[in-house]
Amino acid sequence: MSRIKIIAFDADDTLWANESFFQETEADYCRLFSDVLPGKAISEELLRTEMHNLSLYGYGAKGFTLSMIETALRITGKQLNADTVERILQLGKNLLDMPIELLPDVKEVLMKLKGHYKLVVATKGDLLDQKRKLSKSGLTSMFDHVEIMSDKQQEDYEQLISSLNCQPNEFLMVGNSLKSDIEPVLAVGGYAVYIPFHITWAHEKSNEDVVNERLVRLDRLGELLPLLRKMDQLQE
Amino acid sequence: MSRIKIIAFDADDTLWANESFFQETEADYCRLFSDVLPGKAISEELLRTEMHNLSLYGYGAKGFTLSMIETALRITGKQLNADTVERILQLGKNLLDMPIELLPDVKEVLMKLKGHYKLVVATKGDLLDQKRKLSKSGLTSMFDHVEIMSDKQQEDYEQLISSLNCQPNEFLMVGNSLKSDIEPVLAVGGYAVYIPFHITWAHEKSNEDVVNERLVRLDRLGELLPLLRKMDQLQE
Repeated sequence: MSRIKIIAFDADDTLWANESFFQETEADYCRLFSDVLPGKAISEELLRTEMHNLSLYGYGAKGFTLSMIETALRITGKQLNADTVERILQLGKNLLDMPIELLPDVKEVLMKLKGHYKLVVATKGDLLDQKRKLSKSGLTSMFDHVEIMSDKQQEDYEQLISSLNCQPNEFLMVGNSLKSDIEPVLAVGGYAVYIPFHITWAHEKSNEDVVNERLVRLDRLGELLPLLRKMDQLQE
Repeated sequence: MSRIKIIAFDADDTLWANESFFQETEADYCRLFSDVLPGKAISEELLRTEMHNLSLYGYGAKGFTLSMIETALRITGKQLNADTVERILQLGKNLLDMPIELLPDVKEVLMKLKGHYKLVVATKGDLLDQKRKLSKSGLTSMFDHVEIMSDKQQEDYEQLISSLNCQPNEFLMVGNSLKSDIEPVLAVGGYAVYIPFHITWAHEKSNEDVVNERLVRLDRLGELLPLLRKMDQLQE
């Protein structure tokens, strides 16, 4: 195999917990309307709104907040009072201000890799929001490049790899979403390490049975170092 | 003077009209509450909310929509009905879907400059929203690089210039905001061309009396070509 030069990391649920805060927020949101519909039905309506608005709002907490308000109008038949609107705005602000808790091994692994590879954060979401989270994580200095992407399709990775002046087979992506981090990278000829997070957003759920000789599945990030050694990719 | 290698253009109100759509939206918004407060007072309250939320929401139509809802709750003393909330959400969606009307001379000037300079779009706002506007403008192929910035402070330009591998005195910024496009670029040692748009967002208003030997003020973009010729910067 070729020599890996760039290791790119997804951020949310790969470097730090994110989806758990979104799901806690969604649970709080469902409780606001527990007299209207069961939680599961509200979550389904919310996801439907999010998918409908995705091309307009994109990913991130601001679009999520707007979709929560739109869904609330629909499920209440517009019997929505101002206090509830205020509560939803506040849920959104809390999400934007969520604490950043690094996942296991993150700091240690990045410190080991730094200097051996060009390290990149490749994340989608709101520009300001993702920059703030990276800054709060204390990890900014670990990375050579930060790419905040409006989407993570095959062509987005082609652009990223080209802008980093490397070849696809010199690029390794680490992430928790088969759909966004793994499958498109394999499709363009890159390497991928899949580390599932315990919760996955419904929209990111994908067939778990991907098999590819350029894909490795790990349980936690700490296993990346032995893997790279085994692949004869880590000079220490 | 040194040889200019990179010409960067602000997008909103430099390449295409933007603030006029925001102000039309704000006028529609004020009319929703004409029985509560005079339009001018509503605008002041809205700006106050926007400034309060700026560090959390950043720039762009989604944060603007959330701030419109928050302001509506405050000015009505929470006597806000669901129909009005729905109208505000729709105002925000219309903004995100606004038509892109190129300003005078834009296409002609970019075609003349292309190949002679590295051409860059340097804009702030929502990532997805700004990418969509650029795509709708039909100008994507004119540019060598697109930088969507979470802010346009001095350090943001320092980073941009460094990532473009050029020196500040090889960088020329063209824009309509003295505060965001001109003053920080002059401060880092770059050149700036200021082309005022007929409307300026209150937050972007600045002292008009900036004097600097690296700053030129033009009435329209078409004057950029004669200026570059006069500066002996355009080889044709």
